[in-house]
Amino acid sequence: MSSMDCATFPMHPKMDEQLARAFAANEEEEEKHIQKVQNAFLYYGPYACQRLKRSMDYLNSLSGEDQIMLARYRGHLECVRTCIDRNQAVIREILRERVLYPAEEATGDPSADRWEFEEPPPNVRHGDMDQAQSTLKLIARDWSTEGALEREQSYKPIIDSIVEYYKPSDFELKEIKILVPGAGLGRLTYELACLGYSCEGNEFSYFMLIASNFVLNLCDYENKYVLYPWVHQYVNNLRREDQVAAVRFPDVCPLKNPPKGHFEIAAGDFLEVYKTPNAYNCVATCFFIDCANNVIDFIRTIYKILVPGGIWVNLGPLLYHYSDVSGQNSIEPTFEDLCIIMESVGFVIETSRTGIRTKYAQNPSSMKQSEYQSLFWVCRKPDTFEEQRGKRKASREPHDLIVREDSEEEEEQQPERNEMEQKQQLKPLANGDTEMKAQPT
Amino acid sequence: MSSMDCATFPMHPKMDEQLARAFAANEEEEEKHIQKVQNAFLYYGPYACQRLKRSMDYLNSLSGEDQIMLARYRGHLECVRTCIDRNQAVIREILRERVLYPAEEATGDPSADRWEFEEPPPNVRHGDMDQAQSTLKLIARDWSTEGALEREQSYKPIIDSIVEYYKPSDFELKEIKILVPGAGLGRLTYELACLGYSCEGNEFSYFMLIASNFVLNLCDYENKYVLYPWVHQYVNNLRREDQVAAVRFPDVCPLKNPPKGHFEIAAGDFLEVYKTPNAYNCVATCFFIDCANNVIDFIRTIYKILVPGGIWVNLGPLLYHYSDVSGQNSIEPTFEDLCIIMESVGFVIETSRTGIRTKYAQNPSSMKQSEYQSLFWVCRKPDTFEEQRGKRKASREPHDLIVREDSEEEEEQQPERNEMEQKQQLKPLANGDTEMKAQPT
Repeated sequence: MSSMDCATFPMHPKMDEQLARAFAANEEEEEKHIQKVQNAFLYYGPYACQRLKRSMDYLNSLSGEDQIMLARYRGHLECVRTCIDRNQAVIREILRERVLYPAEEATGDPSADRWEFEEPPPNVRHGDMDQAQSTLKLIARDWSTEGALEREQSYKPIIDSIVEYYKPSDFELKEIKILVPGAGLGRLTYELACLGYSCEGNEFSYFMLIASNFVLNLCDYENKYVLYPWVHQYVNNLRREDQVAAVRFPDVCPLKNPPKGHFEIAAGDFLEVYKTPNAYNCVATCFFIDCANNVIDFIRTIYKILVPGGIWVNLGPLLYHYSDVSGQNSIEPTFEDLCIIMESVGFVIETSRTGIRTKYAQNPSSMKQSEYQSLFWVCRKPDTFEEQRGKRKASREPHDLIVREDSEEEEEQQPERNEMEQKQQLKPLANGDTEMKAQPT
Repeated sequence: MSSMDCATFPMHPKMDEQLARAFAANEEEEEKHIQKVQNAFLYYGPYACQRLKRSMDYLNSLSGEDQIMLARYRGHLECVRTCIDRNQAVIREILRERVLYPAEEATGDPSADRWEFEEPPPNVRHGDMDQAQSTLKLIARDWSTEGALEREQSYKPIIDSIVEYYKPSDFELKEIKILVPGAGLGRLTYELACLGYSCEGNEFSYFMLIASNFVLNLCDYENKYVLYPWVHQYVNNLRREDQVAAVRFPDVCPLKNPPKGHFEIAAGDFLEVYKTPNAYNCVATCFFIDCANNVIDFIRTIYKILVPGGIWVNLGPLLYHYSDVSGQNSIEPTFEDLCIIMESVGFVIETSRTGIRTKYAQNPSSMKQSEYQSLFWVCRKPDTFEEQRGKRKASREPHDLIVREDSEEEEEQQPERNEMEQKQQLKPLANGDTEMKAQPT
């Protein structure tokens, strides 16, 4: 079954009329941005090889005795080079059919060597190159058998909750509209659509959009491609082969396994694009809400676009992405604060759990292993009567939720106290030693 | 018992005659460097408050409605400010007695406000400020009850192996000389000295040296001071109180509990300082060997300074610190490569384990949890006869060690093959799809 036999999944800039006008005005800028992302993808190989060359140059400068001991390591670095070349070849494939914004004829044959840059392309920064490398890891997370555990950890709790709330036995699923902001490589959205729900993914990053378009619309059979997602990790390798481990994708071919329900991916900024009230039965966010400058804007928008009675299902940590990015505004409310915010906005918190163990694009062989103790919650936008009652309550007195079982007792014993009291309670602790000792003696 | 009643533990630049001459010539530069570290410590508070102010400014720019929802978060940010001030007060204490390089009289009263900088002090970079913040976390790791688990994970396997090899029943422990390169805050060295061994820690970083001198020589009772080591972590907080959690130190007061064995800390670069052959019975390295540009230099030096029959005990990952530092040379051999190197240098690998779970200066309440699957080994420098035989063998054919139990079978079934064969075996995998598909169709 070739891709010509299949209808492709729509992938488009999502715009209302107002946005369309703004977009037309900024089209040139938008195209420039996409060009930058494509350039970063094309500079992937040369950039990665520059890093490799630094190690190789240093290796060559070492004594003969050292070089003998490092003979296998040298061979390994050559193997790393091969893997980088193969990754670049896959990236060329990914860019071959530029569905979103076809290149002008003049650009010529995409597989030719001159597609790649020897010098850094204009406007491409280290951060863009990191994103190009991350894209490879995220393909492995979303679309390889090696990513199955991570998907089980992150997507299953979300899917289970939605199926529980919008039971296939009780609803005509194609009428249940689900939005997945921060859709990334699209697997969660795809899985929900496979169950029969009517699904729309939203994504801002063209690194993600270009790659997901490739997997969703251009891969014509399972495990067609091979990537080396960990080849840029030079540290914490037990064996040489760990750095050059191959990952095949896609483990499932969406073209050959089209979902039962409607499925589309919309490009654009979540806050810009989604302004129509009461439009979705469910919003599902996974590793997304910490991508806001002000998370309240996200929460308020989610509330607005949900139909009364609709649910917001969230899973992820609070790794606020703009927290230490220069030139970006950021606040970083804790989970406690988010509970206050969600209730103040009007949500009813139906379920809330902490400590959900979730890895995110982790190299399974690395000597460094990180995982998030993620948050998970299901919130409901109440019907009109509930909503009014809820808002009055929330504005009267926001209250903290008890978030951990092991601290419940402590919480119950202590009367609620405000931050100022906490500070005053802290004071004497240090007064007796640190601060007094700081005086000259 | 005041510090005046105790002999302090020596802490000194370690120099042979040649180095002493070089040092005298560079003394001005050295003093400049120490001044920079002190300045970074003194700029700790203003720097941390600048970061805090950015959040506060953004918070103040939000709508009234948002600010109401964030009222407790605002109170929390004020609490963060208090914790930063208290950390700075402890840092002032740490700098008060400048034992290593006493300040000139002109510097004046160390607790006065003018000690702190409003503007970035000259030559102090973001990296230095990161190190100042890390120092607080490392004090918690080495010298608080909260750090007990991490110390158990990292130090206990090392201590157990040394006690097993140099049994108190078989040796006069004070004659067993142990060197701990990368001694950091000094706890491992202290614990070994408490057992009766004759111990010398070596440390290059003046952030560490200044802080360890304070804990070892200037803290006169247990848990005298309070730090807030996680106050700079704005993300992944479940509760507001997690960010402002207090940690007391020192959990043990070295002045009141002087070790049985000799104990000193020597300042200086490991490769520069340690050149005398056959000087130590044991070298213990913990999270250290990946701090080399070329790890072979470390391994060769360790081999040289050990007495024949002496042991090297190592624990840690391979997070090669110079791996992506611009302007620094780096090679990053895997554990497999290190085994070849250790044997080629002449070591006999007595014990070697992988996957030792070790956290390093981790905030226990954070939603992000990282740990290393550390390496652990005990190597022996053979006696003269063994050594000659070993060297001949090693130069003939270095061989890989089987590092994981679960892959033993596979290893046994496969004949050893070189990197080139591996590459050739990889080739056809991609030839059939990726690389051919990259051609225009």
